[in-house]
Amino acid sequence: MTSKKKEEHEVLPKKEENEHKEPKEPVRAYFSKERALTESSDNARELYNQSRYGTLLDDGRVQLSLIEGLYLIEKKRLMVYDSKNKLIDFGAFLKKAQKVEPNFWVRYCVYRDIRNRGYIIKTALKFGADFRIYDRGVKPGEDHARWVVFPVNEGSSLTWYEFSAKNRVAHSTKKRLLIGCVDDEGDCTYWEVRWLRP
Amino acid sequence: MTSKKKEEHEVLPKKEENEHKEPKEPVRAYFSKERALTESSDNARELYNQSRYGTLLDDGRVQLSLIEGLYLIEKKRLMVYDSKNKLIDFGAFLKKAQKVEPNFWVRYCVYRDIRNRGYIIKTALKFGADFRIYDRGVKPGEDHARWVVFPVNEGSSLTWYEFSAKNRVAHSTKKRLLIGCVDDEGDCTYWEVRWLRP
Amino acid sequence: MTSKKKEEHEVLPKKEENEHKEPKEPVRAYFSKERALTESSDNARELYNQSRYGTLLDDGRVQLSLIEGLYLIEKKRLMVYDSKNKLIDFGAFLKKAQKVEPNFWVRYCVYRDIRNRGYIIKTALKFGADFRIYDRGVKPGEDHARWVVFPVNEGSSLTWYEFSAKNRVAHSTKKRLLIGCVDDEGDCTYWEVRWLRP
Amino acid sequence: MTSKKKEEHEVLPKKEENEHKEPKEPVRAYFSKERALTESSDNARELYNQSRYGTLLDDGRVQLSLIEGLYLIEKKRLMVYDSKNKLIDFGAFLKKAQKVEPNFWVRYCVYRDIRNRGYIIKTALKFGADFRIYDRGVKPGEDHARWVVFPVNEGSSLTWYEFSAKNRVAHSTKKRLLIGCVDDEGDCTYWEVRWLRP
Repeated sequence: MTSKKKEEHEVLPKKEENEHKEPKEPVRAYFSKERALTESSDNARELYNQSRYGTLLDDGRVQLSLIEGLYLIEKKRLMVYDSKNKLIDFGAFLKKAQKVEPNFWVRYCVYRDIRNRGYIIKTALKFGADFRIYDRGVKPGEDHARWVVFPVNEGSSLTWYEFSAKNRVAHSTKKRLLIGCVDDEGDCTYWEVRWLRP
Repeated sequence: MTSKKKEEHEVLPKKEENEHKEPKEPVRAYFSKERALTESSDNARELYNQSRYGTLLDDGRVQLSLIEGLYLIEKKRLMVYDSKNKLIDFGAFLKKAQKVEPNFWVRYCVYRDIRNRGYIIKTALKFGADFRIYDRGVKPGEDHARWVVFPVNEGSSLTWYEFSAKNRVAHSTKKRLLIGCVDDEGDCTYWEVRWLRP
Repeated sequence: MTSKKKEEHEVLPKKEENEHKEPKEPVRAYFSKERALTESSDNARELYNQSRYGTLLDDGRVQLSLIEGLYLIEKKRLMVYDSKNKLIDFGAFLKKAQKVEPNFWVRYCVYRDIRNRGYIIKTALKFGADFRIYDRGVKPGEDHARWVVFPVNEGSSLTWYEFSAKNRVAHSTKKRLLIGCVDDEGDCTYWEVRWLRP
Repeated sequence: MTSKKKEEHEVLPKKEENEHKEPKEPVRAYFSKERALTESSDNARELYNQSRYGTLLDDGRVQLSLIEGLYLIEKKRLMVYDSKNKLIDFGAFLKKAQKVEPNFWVRYCVYRDIRNRGYIIKTALKFGADFRIYDRGVKPGEDHARWVVFPVNEGSSLTWYEFSAKNRVAHSTKKRLLIGCVDDEGDCTYWEVRWLRP
């Protein structure tokens, strides 16, 4: 409990306009159960190279998670097809994703909101959280992630054991803890939590 | 993944007979919202000194958590009274406790089971778990706890993010992770989990 | 989400020895239902002047809350008598206090812990919280309080609406939010929470 | 719950460089719906003899599962052709495999990761699991497999009934249970689980 009076409440920047001024040809991809796999093209690789969507495979294709896939569909940068070459639209993709991942929508809302603000956000499964977020302008590999974020639904509740665990997780991975609470309108409220050790 | 073929499945010892052969006069206590406070007596202090129930206050009384209180009522070692000096029996105590703590019953089942096996089990809130368990014959202060345990209800489910978090918590506190799953008959199944790091 | 990488985890200082080296004659006080009222003496007024215990009445006596009263009893700086001039010891005072205030013990644990660390802590009822805490060396009136603190019991749970409300309260009063979680052994874990506004 | 304090967290060895220093001529194979069938050649038989890929047929050819096939394609040790003698590259093979097996990618990630670490991993269908893993340097037939492994996708969830079943399966086949959780970047996190019997 030191004395830093001048420290202001940090403020997440306003949602940005889509940073891609010139609309690009959407990338083609096909759907499999838990992933979407793009064609091998420069546009596809740009998804990975510029903003770190998905993972780059050896043969030049980009493999996207369901959350990344839905986000890029929403941004009109991806068109996903099923095995019969039928286009899967946003609603159909969401429906499929929700069958596979029970918390998909809440997690998607936080993912989308953070991406819209211009941050790179990736899985944090191995750290014990849903996502990790890199500071603005930082790409994975260049520096460590700054936050781990736990998306929660506004109607849920938490025990203090769970809250304590989340703090332990963040502390042991040397990241800041962010709770992203999603309301019924899909808006996100963020709280950054710090454990003050006795 | 080293090779220790001879390692046997560790087995929790069978439930023990109550170790207190001679029945003792139950300790008197009174109930407050989240605690039970004993009288100041040798019998009361023995609860703390011998088996580390509760915390010892300066004036010689022992303060018990609701879980400890209910366990000692069940063992006929405690009689708890309300502010009008009316005895609170097991059922009434349980009902009161469940009002204050939403997961009380599941946590109680694991607490009782571990205590019945002769282990000392205490809160692990500050470690990010429900309880910590000391090895047999070890008292808090003499050595570190060996396990952190998360009680879960058989009907619930878990995400892999939560599972990963529990492993992180155990690892960062240098304890072993125990999942204690309580079935509808109040019986407990235990799984010990180890994170194998790449 | 600005970039302050070097910012260290703030650490609450270790519990201090009681700062009053020379033991003083305990102050005498009388118990009334929700208060303790001291005699009018220099020693009594010092409680207020030095460490801001209670409120100073016009007639020179100091009126203490139940929490302040119990703390000073524990510190052997106060002796409280009932209307029959019978001394009320720690346990009896606690019992009386718990009848009046259902969350008394949890709130007391946080109050005691913060006081033991050398901070002045006072009610924050008018701010919408349990307590406010002043920075080290700061007395009420000299500067604003730095934190509002909400004591919670480890076994309880919280909805995100309640969590959000606590953040609003802290934010609107320009104080930092502190959750003080009291475990079954009376130990306190603190989390500081900041609302990051979209 | 015995006392083995010095037992260290076992650590999976770092990913190894491909142990085959001199690049070999890739083996030719033909695709059929759920299998790939190699030519009959010394190189093909070496796949089986050295590292137990596939099963050796009477006529000297090796039959590979889709997972084994894709892995060997990725390692450039296999070239698979369709019925029109057209080469099937990694992406096309993956697409075909995913049509046949819905969980193909998640299972593949675990298979690849374990193989990359130098273990022999084979199907465990008859044991009630996805794969069995042999200890380092052990080949099927020389000794029993040490683990059964269940690949899971990070976004999925599990009931405790399913978790219990996996433990039963491992226990009844006298193998250790390994959960291999695949995150959105294709990385694998492993947890070894042991059932502690009451």
